[in-house]
Amino acid sequence: MEAFSDGVIAIILTIMVLEMKVPHGHSLETLRPVVPVFLSYILSFVHIGIYWNNHHHMLQRVTHVGGGVLWANLHLLFWLSLMPFATGFMGENDFAQIPVALYLVDLLACAMAYFLLERSLIARHGRDSEFARALGRSWKDKASPAIYLAALGLTFVSSWLGLLGVVTVAAIWFIPDRRFERA
Amino acid sequence: MEAFSDGVIAIILTIMVLEMKVPHGHSLETLRPVVPVFLSYILSFVHIGIYWNNHHHMLQRVTHVGGGVLWANLHLLFWLSLMPFATGFMGENDFAQIPVALYLVDLLACAMAYFLLERSLIARHGRDSEFARALGRSWKDKASPAIYLAALGLTFVSSWLGLLGVVTVAAIWFIPDRRFERA
Amino acid sequence: MEAFSDGVIAIILTIMVLEMKVPHGHSLETLRPVVPVFLSYILSFVHIGIYWNNHHHMLQRVTHVGGGVLWANLHLLFWLSLMPFATGFMGENDFAQIPVALYLVDLLACAMAYFLLERSLIARHGRDSEFARALGRSWKDKASPAIYLAALGLTFVSSWLGLLGVVTVAAIWFIPDRRFERA
Amino acid sequence: MEAFSDGVIAIILTIMVLEMKVPHGHSLETLRPVVPVFLSYILSFVHIGIYWNNHHHMLQRVTHVGGGVLWANLHLLFWLSLMPFATGFMGENDFAQIPVALYLVDLLACAMAYFLLERSLIARHGRDSEFARALGRSWKDKASPAIYLAALGLTFVSSWLGLLGVVTVAAIWFIPDRRFERA
Repeated sequence: MEAFSDGVIAIILTIMVLEMKVPHGHSLETLRPVVPVFLSYILSFVHIGIYWNNHHHMLQRVTHVGGGVLWANLHLLFWLSLMPFATGFMGENDFAQIPVALYLVDLLACAMAYFLLERSLIARHGRDSEFARALGRSWKDKASPAIYLAALGLTFVSSWLGLLGVVTVAAIWFIPDRRFERA
Repeated sequence: MEAFSDGVIAIILTIMVLEMKVPHGHSLETLRPVVPVFLSYILSFVHIGIYWNNHHHMLQRVTHVGGGVLWANLHLLFWLSLMPFATGFMGENDFAQIPVALYLVDLLACAMAYFLLERSLIARHGRDSEFARALGRSWKDKASPAIYLAALGLTFVSSWLGLLGVVTVAAIWFIPDRRFERA
Repeated sequence: MEAFSDGVIAIILTIMVLEMKVPHGHSLETLRPVVPVFLSYILSFVHIGIYWNNHHHMLQRVTHVGGGVLWANLHLLFWLSLMPFATGFMGENDFAQIPVALYLVDLLACAMAYFLLERSLIARHGRDSEFARALGRSWKDKASPAIYLAALGLTFVSSWLGLLGVVTVAAIWFIPDRRFERA
Repeated sequence: MEAFSDGVIAIILTIMVLEMKVPHGHSLETLRPVVPVFLSYILSFVHIGIYWNNHHHMLQRVTHVGGGVLWANLHLLFWLSLMPFATGFMGENDFAQIPVALYLVDLLACAMAYFLLERSLIARHGRDSEFARALGRSWKDKASPAIYLAALGLTFVSSWLGLLGVVTVAAIWFIPDRRFERA
């Protein structure tokens, strides 16, 4: 399951760059429309990187896998796989409100899918298992969806406030989840 | 063989999302033509997920591989690799009859290729092998092609009846194949 | 090296399907221009499958790898990576002479790159090594480039004669290389 | 981390070929605009091949990984992932000055990211570790960014001088890093 997930995440990370369409012409000005696509690519690259790091750390502790866990994992990969679309939509429209809102909806769905995967893994290993103890509780797990939701609302005030929420979550997760490293 | 198959399936799963073309414009209405592509993406994602789950479970029991098995496996991957095309064709044409019929033809071909792979693996391991006993018989193996065939016929009455067949097969396979887990 | 090569070959195999562009419209006639692209996809899928099978069998016997071998391997992957382009060019032009000739040039280059990889692996393991003995000599190694060259010439008489050469080589390699299985 | 990086590099290597768009028409002349894209593809293929070789050799010696190393690695993958875009931009504009300059900026960023990854790995293993001793010092590490920088300046005299710098660095790295093989 880890190899398959790593493969899917690696492909998502890399095909996102295909949304940066090579412009016609070779002056610096022809690159200007690529700039917002590039910036949204950076944002999504960091997010996918965070998911890969945390997912990778979590799966290394997993000792039991079942049908429910496999589908919870595929569910997370589904929402992650929409990132290239959401990223391209946002970048090609210069961070307009609807695309930023859609981007936040996808990030919120990813966060909730990750949470469900954690729960299904805890259910599989048992509440008193070494896995459950190592996972513990993180304020980040709860803060992230809350920030995304707030940012989603604020997007309709200004899309830059929505993006501020995205950057904030990226910043608090930038350091990979230490819970497993510690344990 | 398992790593290669997992890689191909992971790529098929992920490039399917490239059929969801980023629309020009940033209003909610510009997203409307993407909706049927998105719905058909969900349908195909679940199907590919089911194939990955069952394929993965089956291959973990495999102890012998030969030329025939390798080609039976590539044959399955061939029909699975047509899923992005069939999915895009169906989604971009709002579930019209010909595209839904083509989608069903591809699913039927995948189901038959999977069946052939099972037979070639049983032939390789022997009819009395642990592998063959673990695989056993499943009514799902026989029901799926029958439902696809019926749905293919019903598509020419209404393409929604055809899609009902697709959803039905997805539903009966949603829970991964327990035969190997049990054994 | 094997995992990386398998990954590259899996991606080549799968992105080739992206050359089958989803047509506008949903009648059976709109699918007609896709038919030659589909046929050339089948042809290339079988060829890449053959390369994967043989490459996979050969690498499982490899015990020593060096810089020369790594580059001989990348050289093979380079020519294989041009298959999606050559396939699309041939399919979208209804098997016209220049595209078929280019396709044959790429196949010839792949065959020669595979031969060079074999030689560099034998040089690395030693002429009397178990690897070299297991590899032995195959008339197929010599026949394939000869058939490709003849087919290349015949393409300028008729592109169908060129394609006959492609199908012939595919047929003689269809059964994976038994040399290693025997040994 | 190695499997994930190998996957990303394999995908970058392969999707680069998608920048070679299949031309309309089937005469030899229709292939003419593809030639510069093909040449820049060769150049980038060799570069990515060099990175894969050196990265692969280095990671096989790695015994400790931490959050800092994971992000230094993702940072390298980020700049490598821009290679398909930079390659396509350069090839489709017939090696004009701005695209060649951008290509050099990306190569320079890759070289610096690789250097940072080396430093973060040395910091993780300790300055007196076996890893640090095996890595040693290479004049290539210092020469490459210097040549890229000089080539970047010279690009504004003539883009061919810039490309000469790219080819020079490729040539000095063509032989994979022997430091680890020796040690």
